[in-house]
Amino acid sequence: MKDEVALLATVTLLGVLLQAYFSLQVISARRTFRVSPPLTTGPPEFERIYRAQVNCSEYFPLFLATLWVAGVFFHEGTAALCGLIYLFARLRYFQGYARSAQFRLAPLYASARVLWLLVALAVLGLLGHFLPISLGVALHGRLRMLLPGTRD
Amino acid sequence: MKDEVALLATVTLLGVLLQAYFSLQVISARRTFRVSPPLTTGPPEFERIYRAQVNCSEYFPLFLATLWVAGVFFHEGTAALCGLIYLFARLRYFQGYARSAQFRLAPLYASARVLWLLVALAVLGLLGHFLPISLGVALHGRLRMLLPGTRD
Amino acid sequence: MKDEVALLATVTLLGVLLQAYFSLQVISARRTFRVSPPLTTGPPEFERIYRAQVNCSEYFPLFLATLWVAGVFFHEGTAALCGLIYLFARLRYFQGYARSAQFRLAPLYASARVLWLLVALAVLGLLGHFLPISLGVALHGRLRMLLPGTRD
Repeated sequence: MKDEVALLATVTLLGVLLQAYFSLQVISARRTFRVSPPLTTGPPEFERIYRAQVNCSEYFPLFLATLWVAGVFFHEGTAALCGLIYLFARLRYFQGYARSAQFRLAPLYASARVLWLLVALAVLGLLGHFLPISLGVALHGRLRMLLPGTRD
Repeated sequence: MKDEVALLATVTLLGVLLQAYFSLQVISARRTFRVSPPLTTGPPEFERIYRAQVNCSEYFPLFLATLWVAGVFFHEGTAALCGLIYLFARLRYFQGYARSAQFRLAPLYASARVLWLLVALAVLGLLGHFLPISLGVALHGRLRMLLPGTRD
Repeated sequence: MKDEVALLATVTLLGVLLQAYFSLQVISARRTFRVSPPLTTGPPEFERIYRAQVNCSEYFPLFLATLWVAGVFFHEGTAALCGLIYLFARLRYFQGYARSAQFRLAPLYASARVLWLLVALAVLGLLGHFLPISLGVALHGRLRMLLPGTRD
């Protein structure tokens, strides 16, 4: 089992490290802009960094779920490569958002495109898994109707 | 391995698509009510849609974790069916919350009941996995005490 | 497969139950301090309980991902034990934060230390998986260069 998911596990761990980096950036911004927990509002610079981290956190479970379904049912290497591109786009999104709300857009769209690609691979993988089964069942039924001798 | 988790993977992917739909609704509400990121406050209509999406995002990892433990250790088809019902309840919750805070309640309680059912199935599945092992160990110990000849 | 992940699945389910407990505490605090959804601001007592739950929710996917990679690629029992300690630290964090922002710090640092330990175990596990493969490939290449007769 391990051999078929080692690349997915590696990308997963890189994603965890990226999210940890975002969290540390928020802690650092809390100190710089003197925004003590439980507050989450403050100067726009702080709010942008905070929102960038929250947005990446919200998408992280969607990313992991899609990465693994695509990797197990379509192709592990392709899914892992898409995963790396997604994480890189998210890093640029975070850095862009920290500078201005405008700079977050290009990498945000890039990350969304990769995520939709992973969703498409996952759909293809699941279709490739279920269609042969249902086609097989349908063909089996047809054959039994065509060949009366095999009816039981 | 794939055959035992294909239904769980399908429900997982449907869940990702539902969360993507919620996110697109928030983006659309941001335009309608002119609430630009990083702001998350605005007219009550916007705040309800935003909170509905945040609440569904918060529960998504809990849902996925419970779905998979119940599906692997209890029964895949039963867990996948509960998963579909949960996602449908979450869709009605989101649509209800967008209309009024009151309308979110009935589907929210429905989604909570299905999630607790999945938790119960997961607990049963894990008990069914561990109890035979510990019963076996206990029985083995008893038998060795009753049959002195087998002591070693 | 089940035998190799049953402990991880148990810790995962305990984590889901802990998150459910935190959510119920927020619902109870909403009633006590009369903060109706979609509002998330109110008296500091309410905001601390709310932020404690949000923070635990944000880290839950990171925790699960690291727990499973460490448990599958390093050692299941060790990862599960670290997972139990992490969940206990998160419970003390929640209870501490409900009392004061200061009391959240010690258990927060404890939970961070256990999470980094899980990350380290996961990295070691993945290195232990990939290094033998790449070492094997490298050795195989060297041997083929040293033994001209085996070139093909």
